[in-house]
Amino acid sequence: MPPRKTRDQIDRIFYPQSLAVVGTNKVRGTVPGDIFVNILKDDFQGVIYPVAPGERFISGIKAYKYVLDIPDEVDMAVLVFPSSVCHMAMEQCGQKGIKSMIIISAGFKEVGGAGVEREKQIKAIADKYGISFIGPNCLGVINTDPKCRMNASFARQMPDEGNIAFISQSGALCTAVLDYARAKHIGFSKFVSFGNKADVNEIDLLYYLKDDPKTKVILIYLEEISDAHGLMQVAKEIISETGKPVLAIKSGRTSEGASAAASHTGSLAGSDSACDAAFAQAGIIRCDTIEDMFNFAIAFAYQPLPAGNRVAIITNAGGPGVLTTDKAIKEGLQLAKFSEETTKAFKMSLPKTANIKNPVDVIGDARADRYNIALTSSLKDPNVDGVMVILTPQSMTDIKTIAEEVANISSQYTKPIFASFMGEADVAVGIDILQRRSIPHYQVPEDMCKSFARVYRFKKQLERNAIGILGVQQFEDVDNYTAQKILDEAKAAGRNYLPEEEAEKVLKAYNLPMLPGGLANSAEEAVKIADSIGYPVVMKVISDDIVHKFDVGGVRLNIISSEDAGNAYRHILENIKRTHPEAHLKGIFVQKMVKGGEEVILGLKRDPAFGPVIMFGLGGIFVEVFKDISFRIAPVTGDSISDMIKEIKSYPLLSGARHRNERDIESIELCIQRISQLSVECPQIQELDINPLIVLDKGEGCYVADSKIML
Amino acid sequence: MPPRKTRDQIDRIFYPQSLAVVGTNKVRGTVPGDIFVNILKDDFQGVIYPVAPGERFISGIKAYKYVLDIPDEVDMAVLVFPSSVCHMAMEQCGQKGIKSMIIISAGFKEVGGAGVEREKQIKAIADKYGISFIGPNCLGVINTDPKCRMNASFARQMPDEGNIAFISQSGALCTAVLDYARAKHIGFSKFVSFGNKADVNEIDLLYYLKDDPKTKVILIYLEEISDAHGLMQVAKEIISETGKPVLAIKSGRTSEGASAAASHTGSLAGSDSACDAAFAQAGIIRCDTIEDMFNFAIAFAYQPLPAGNRVAIITNAGGPGVLTTDKAIKEGLQLAKFSEETTKAFKMSLPKTANIKNPVDVIGDARADRYNIALTSSLKDPNVDGVMVILTPQSMTDIKTIAEEVANISSQYTKPIFASFMGEADVAVGIDILQRRSIPHYQVPEDMCKSFARVYRFKKQLERNAIGILGVQQFEDVDNYTAQKILDEAKAAGRNYLPEEEAEKVLKAYNLPMLPGGLANSAEEAVKIADSIGYPVVMKVISDDIVHKFDVGGVRLNIISSEDAGNAYRHILENIKRTHPEAHLKGIFVQKMVKGGEEVILGLKRDPAFGPVIMFGLGGIFVEVFKDISFRIAPVTGDSISDMIKEIKSYPLLSGARHRNERDIESIELCIQRISQLSVECPQIQELDINPLIVLDKGEGCYVADSKIML
Repeated sequence: MPPRKTRDQIDRIFYPQSLAVVGTNKVRGTVPGDIFVNILKDDFQGVIYPVAPGERFISGIKAYKYVLDIPDEVDMAVLVFPSSVCHMAMEQCGQKGIKSMIIISAGFKEVGGAGVEREKQIKAIADKYGISFIGPNCLGVINTDPKCRMNASFARQMPDEGNIAFISQSGALCTAVLDYARAKHIGFSKFVSFGNKADVNEIDLLYYLKDDPKTKVILIYLEEISDAHGLMQVAKEIISETGKPVLAIKSGRTSEGASAAASHTGSLAGSDSACDAAFAQAGIIRCDTIEDMFNFAIAFAYQPLPAGNRVAIITNAGGPGVLTTDKAIKEGLQLAKFSEETTKAFKMSLPKTANIKNPVDVIGDARADRYNIALTSSLKDPNVDGVMVILTPQSMTDIKTIAEEVANISSQYTKPIFASFMGEADVAVGIDILQRRSIPHYQVPEDMCKSFARVYRFKKQLERNAIGILGVQQFEDVDNYTAQKILDEAKAAGRNYLPEEEAEKVLKAYNLPMLPGGLANSAEEAVKIADSIGYPVVMKVISDDIVHKFDVGGVRLNIISSEDAGNAYRHILENIKRTHPEAHLKGIFVQKMVKGGEEVILGLKRDPAFGPVIMFGLGGIFVEVFKDISFRIAPVTGDSISDMIKEIKSYPLLSGARHRNERDIESIELCIQRISQLSVECPQIQELDINPLIVLDKGEGCYVADSKIML
Repeated sequence: MPPRKTRDQIDRIFYPQSLAVVGTNKVRGTVPGDIFVNILKDDFQGVIYPVAPGERFISGIKAYKYVLDIPDEVDMAVLVFPSSVCHMAMEQCGQKGIKSMIIISAGFKEVGGAGVEREKQIKAIADKYGISFIGPNCLGVINTDPKCRMNASFARQMPDEGNIAFISQSGALCTAVLDYARAKHIGFSKFVSFGNKADVNEIDLLYYLKDDPKTKVILIYLEEISDAHGLMQVAKEIISETGKPVLAIKSGRTSEGASAAASHTGSLAGSDSACDAAFAQAGIIRCDTIEDMFNFAIAFAYQPLPAGNRVAIITNAGGPGVLTTDKAIKEGLQLAKFSEETTKAFKMSLPKTANIKNPVDVIGDARADRYNIALTSSLKDPNVDGVMVILTPQSMTDIKTIAEEVANISSQYTKPIFASFMGEADVAVGIDILQRRSIPHYQVPEDMCKSFARVYRFKKQLERNAIGILGVQQFEDVDNYTAQKILDEAKAAGRNYLPEEEAEKVLKAYNLPMLPGGLANSAEEAVKIADSIGYPVVMKVISDDIVHKFDVGGVRLNIISSEDAGNAYRHILENIKRTHPEAHLKGIFVQKMVKGGEEVILGLKRDPAFGPVIMFGLGGIFVEVFKDISFRIAPVTGDSISDMIKEIKSYPLLSGARHRNERDIESIELCIQRISQLSVECPQIQELDINPLIVLDKGEGCYVADSKIML
């Protein structure tokens, strides 16, 4: 990985005092023409120089043939030349001493072939001169900070100033987002389309936004993750150091979507469940849709976090009150139980027919005064953590005044207020007021509930972080040398598969709890091993030539005595001689037999984007039929391991629900920690399957009963 | 249940030629004042008479003191007097010969106490005079048919004419819906707020809408279901006879929501899973939110149903194309594979950088001509069943022209076209065109996919209905007399619980497959029974005084011989004598022991709203931990039974997935059919549990191993 950009380097992109638009022209409606006009008309707080060969001026401003012709110092260049000549313009920018650039031009990596080469070329020039650049193939960069006010993009309009930062891999999506945000009066601090991220990437930008005082909420749209661990790291730092939420959309959830993304970005997608796991581990809030992302973003940006999940619902219509209650409960919120004082206030001031229980129905003819009473009383109530206001446009409803009241009251309290004025045309006047005055507004109450629940969950996450999270445990008692040796030898022999007995040695080297056992080469030896382990035992033939041991009588279970053991050895041998007379036998493996445990599965798979991904689930049908499995990216912290075990639906089978035995969950955690360390220290392992890991009752540990390693 | 209203009776409400607004006044901004003005200004095609004691005229029209003073014939009355005097006005309406009314006034059942009495009173007057009425406590009725044009409601605005009917139990919600619809140019055929439904109810209205030529799609919002079977019946008739989709919201999904609904409507809610089951059985499309409901409604109302699920996605931005692909796949749609001809057309006409695979990316600088090519080629392609058009507002995008092209092209093809112009402000001009010209438009592509998938599923349902559905099977081989006798005797004895042996008799009377067995009163008898059944058998003590048989040694499993049987009998007896010396024993039950079957659960519960609800699931953890169960309302048709078995997630365990034995699913179906008949014919049964029903391999049947009946 290249070194991270410094804060200064990115600062020069967002806050230039002079900039050149290199390759602009006079034709409105084209990217080179529009971008210059955008910077000019949107009131950039610095000097702009058009570089347009063949033009004397652009929009009344003296134009230059080459950037080198500009007599003054230039901080930044916005490059809009066709891709074929970008390298030449860039070379000149370097000579001019320009250290930051935004390359809008398309026709690079995303078109493949020669484009890939062109991209390498400009990157090389940038490195030579120490230039940091955004792009190529992007919409541009917007900084709404009044100190700078730069719309270096070909977006139709500059957004309002606000405290939300949005950075996106898709330029086209930015246009939709800006249009959507403008209608909803959503403001941005920084707005970046980073395109092919040939130099500055999303991680550099995230580090910058972490310390950006103008930014309270960070949104990111990604189609491809190039440095998963870097992304996780910066997200963790942002959340733990600043408490700023990071919301992300990662497209390509389905294989069809991923292949559409691949043909669009030219990159290889990692698995979607690995992405889910990575985001969860890093505390990134993964959003399914742009709509969700902005619904959550305004909740974070406009209002304080709720102290708890007890909400008051205030409505002028019973039906929507019920729908909202349903959704609130489904989302894990609680209906606040009003204090006696609040109930008294409601009884005194609301009409008799009003429903003074939560959801509070102020009745269809309610005007602003009733909303005021319901809202202020709820906010004062110590049993209420936040309020959701619903309005339907009935003939007596003074929509505008109610919106103003809601906004006025909100400014006096530190509890969050959300609103949903239902409808569209008549309520527009009220919605406009709410949006301008930073009350998160939702067209449907269901989205309001979902967003409230989302901020509440983030609040809980911050609290948990504050308590202190368990780190990654590093075991000293592992024998890395032996493990490496086995793996390397197998690899050197051209094998991509470790047979069970070798896999066991690797796991043993990492001190995973193996079932006691040993390889016997005679009946006597088998009996001796069995005696030393204690009965019952199982025996299975070990041979590279026999794949389905069970089917050919190569396995015997439940051997209960020395006599039994001797017979079992001889029987297996006879079976094999009959069915596989040519097979080369390494011996017969004698192993302790465990009864009555719960079978779980531990897996490890190396993902192209996320590296080693650890998988956990209950064995058999739970994995096969219910797909009831959880994932984490290695290395895994103690907290994450505990989460990944609890997160499967069949967790109650381990935790002792409904009169079941409580299993030794702690021993599973230790195994996962060791697997995590193994996956990091032995990159040769492509896949590892422990199936099953037999987990005994609490305090009695667990045993690896079968394992496989792919190289 | 009262007799259904006739078509004529409802017709008189929607199509009066003269109407009186009884109780109106001159005060605008009040319900009585607004309603008269609404009818007048919205151009009612008939005569209006204001009845306003104390006024000479209203809005320039001669007013009458009493309805009886009107010299002409009056078809309908809209009643807006305070609830306390409604009965008097109504009496006069009856005397006047008026046969239909809309009672807007509130203050009836919904306020409890005296209100309940007032509602009974007006209903009695209506019955006396043969009056049919909507309400009380409602927003009113709107009929957009130009023949009538009646806005007999206090809604702020009359909606456009259209082919969607909306009927709602919540008046306030109607105001939000109308406002929302107006902004989106969604038109309605009929719009009814039916309030307390003291006379005309939702079922009457649905029967009317079934035959209403102006209505293509029917929407209903319900807070309480008073006649579940009536509702299911009419929905089935609508769908099978006319193919009109019925979309419903039923609020009160959570217990908190249900109790909010109850305090709002004064009614008892049935279980939500029963509601889900009932809607699914009747073919009603249950929507979670108002937004979903209208998203689906415009898809049904504006476009033909797709022949299949192979969609083409056309976009001018890669990112949204990927997001849409993800969602389409998740919703069960397929990306169409273009024919060679289409691919050729794309190659010839689209720029080189365009992605000509599905999703088709016509690239950011696309104007209407490129959209035209992509759209027409896709529509002509026999591999495409429908097209989804995405647009992001980039600087070169001619939004208005593209919208017009989409609409023009749509009118020439019979395949459905959906659109999502992403953003809000800039794209508004395009969205407006799409909405006015009946292209279903969605602000986010995800909703577009969801809606396309929804209409596709409905299409599949119609196809299945067309093939012919399996009816309810009625078994002749049941002994209803015996079952009734046992149940009645238990009830007469004041018991609310049938012990196992009695429950078994009831089930046996309905010919459910009981495990062979018999009651023994001596060791010899036990051996004799066991010998005749064949080994292995189980034995269990039968006594009303012993609840937990297992814990006191009252059960013995796996008895494999006559000798064993005799010993088991004696052992159980000794155990019981020691632990329950006082217990009265009915004997010891000897029963066949089945091994290796899959345990499933069959249940029956009488729901307050839906009547007998049948439950099915796999035993043990599947029910307890995963809640993996399915429900149907009895009587259950053959199709429904097959669906309810397949619908559980653990179905693969029965169907033989992954090398498992295929179980005798047909025998489960028969059991469910018999339980369904039992539940209908023996209303004394409140709850029935068969746990487990042991299902053997295909062709080998199943056995009831344990059962319980609650009265």
